[in-house]
Amino acid sequence: MENKKKSTIKDIAAVLGLTPSAVSKALNNHPRISEKTKIAVKEAAIQLDYQPNYLSSALRKGKSNLVGVIIPRVNSHFFSSVVENIEKVLNLNGYNIIMTQSNELYVKECQEIDTLLKIQVDGIIASMANETTNLEYYQKIKSKTELVLFDRGEEELNVDYVGIDDYKSSHLVVDHLVSQNCNRIAHIAGFKHIRIYKERIRGYKDALEKWNLESKENWIIESNLRLEDGRRIMQQLLDSSERPDAVYVAGDIAALGALQVLLENNIKVPEEIALIGFSDEPFTSLTQPSISTVNQHSDQIGKLTAEAFLERMKNPKKKTINRIILEPELIIRQSSNRDLK
Amino acid sequence: MENKKKSTIKDIAAVLGLTPSAVSKALNNHPRISEKTKIAVKEAAIQLDYQPNYLSSALRKGKSNLVGVIIPRVNSHFFSSVVENIEKVLNLNGYNIIMTQSNELYVKECQEIDTLLKIQVDGIIASMANETTNLEYYQKIKSKTELVLFDRGEEELNVDYVGIDDYKSSHLVVDHLVSQNCNRIAHIAGFKHIRIYKERIRGYKDALEKWNLESKENWIIESNLRLEDGRRIMQQLLDSSERPDAVYVAGDIAALGALQVLLENNIKVPEEIALIGFSDEPFTSLTQPSISTVNQHSDQIGKLTAEAFLERMKNPKKKTINRIILEPELIIRQSSNRDLK
Repeated sequence: MENKKKSTIKDIAAVLGLTPSAVSKALNNHPRISEKTKIAVKEAAIQLDYQPNYLSSALRKGKSNLVGVIIPRVNSHFFSSVVENIEKVLNLNGYNIIMTQSNELYVKECQEIDTLLKIQVDGIIASMANETTNLEYYQKIKSKTELVLFDRGEEELNVDYVGIDDYKSSHLVVDHLVSQNCNRIAHIAGFKHIRIYKERIRGYKDALEKWNLESKENWIIESNLRLEDGRRIMQQLLDSSERPDAVYVAGDIAALGALQVLLENNIKVPEEIALIGFSDEPFTSLTQPSISTVNQHSDQIGKLTAEAFLERMKNPKKKTINRIILEPELIIRQSSNRDLK
Repeated sequence: MENKKKSTIKDIAAVLGLTPSAVSKALNNHPRISEKTKIAVKEAAIQLDYQPNYLSSALRKGKSNLVGVIIPRVNSHFFSSVVENIEKVLNLNGYNIIMTQSNELYVKECQEIDTLLKIQVDGIIASMANETTNLEYYQKIKSKTELVLFDRGEEELNVDYVGIDDYKSSHLVVDHLVSQNCNRIAHIAGFKHIRIYKERIRGYKDALEKWNLESKENWIIESNLRLEDGRRIMQQLLDSSERPDAVYVAGDIAALGALQVLLENNIKVPEEIALIGFSDEPFTSLTQPSISTVNQHSDQIGKLTAEAFLERMKNPKKKTINRIILEPELIIRQSSNRDLK
């Protein structure tokens, strides 16, 4: 077995009358190659016992061609979609990625960073854990390899970053709720020590002020934004002496928990309490009522993050930092649209 | 910075009057430690500038203490939940995991395998890509390190495996549909070359035979089970001269696509056509009507897979292979329950 001569991309190309480049693209599911050609190439690859050997060229160059990606959790459409899009772009440029999840834990994140540095990845792309306030491990990455952040990143790290305008997102949400005659708007927030959640809180407060609405401290409740946090805090808001008539939740999973509690308490949504989430997780269009939310453009974030990384690899010494901030988009669904009902 | 003496777990323990073992458990979110203690430990860790140093012990033993996990795609609740549970068990036993996704592509899977072998992981846990028919790369893993498979695994590889009884799942589905007076049952299937989908098809056929129902070849349609496959095939079934009165889909995402097409065509579900999916993805309980499905016990699969891996690491030369097959559970919801309506 070991001595058998292995077939190459050239062999497949010769059999099918294609160029080696077309064969390589077909094997990697490149969008420019037709479905029919892809099937023919893959069948030929199996028949000829082709085994990819992409690593050798990387090794010759003394690079690992590996990029480590750290995300808070895999079980989120937003993060898995960003990773999918990062991977598409990097694969086409000869990089492989390996993923780790921090589970929102600071200590686990440190371990993941150590692991990736030990493997000697060519760089790390990350979105920070909820728990992380000490940036020393991220400084350590910077001192050893390239670092690009997306979504959750701190400006003081001074690295390339891709995200959306969180401050503006809150304005879009509050403006819409005001247009639906809501004037007692509560905010189930993320933790203020994380920049994106701080920005959402700041935007929420400023937007209330813009509309001359009161901003009550006990209507801003910080949490981990898990399903159970949404449930607990919504119940707390219902039990309080002053009920809000709208709730803006900084994450969709927590918004789902809030919706469950509203329905269990026979509250009419959006008539009595309107609800808006954040991230456009696919389930928000499936619930009854469907949940209004903010589209963070995970596909764009993934693509632009990968491109920022490639740019950085080409010019590791470039002094200027790329900060790419995308426009958020409010998706209005049943949970906040009083007109449609 | 580099010369500053780093605090250790012992320092945190001394400050808080805990044992080092309790501190270590708290830092890793062990379920036995109270939320209050965890918060205290994490705050102390940040104040004392504690940095975990788990790698050194692994390096002393000449092991990487890294396990590579290959899954078909991250964007699936089933796979991300299995990974989460694998990780919980392995982390508590001193292993870190890194993930890669094959995106259901054979060539990408080969690249991921090469990458993980190059990193010198202590072993690989995998679930195979839809495209994979050539097992040579999996043989290569076996020749170089430990391999444990879950869900999608081929028996001829002769390695430890954890999954559910796919054959029996189809019996549960068909038996229930027959109890709802369905007798023209179609099957939107996965590809027959993958053992789990072959078993679901075999179970479906045998169950039909058991009930003396006709099994038509054009009512078994193989596909990649993506959303668009479910949509396309459901439309095809509606357009055919003989409409089924029930459709059993081998994956939930494709079942969602099928449901969309049924509703767009104003077909009453389950009265005119009953629908059952597979995997208990969380969205199946949120759709209108909610989708009946088969629970694959992702948490149990993850836990048992990790335990099989640990067992294998302890006894790498053990000749007997562990094949753990869990009982499937049918979850009956609105899309197939004609009685409830």
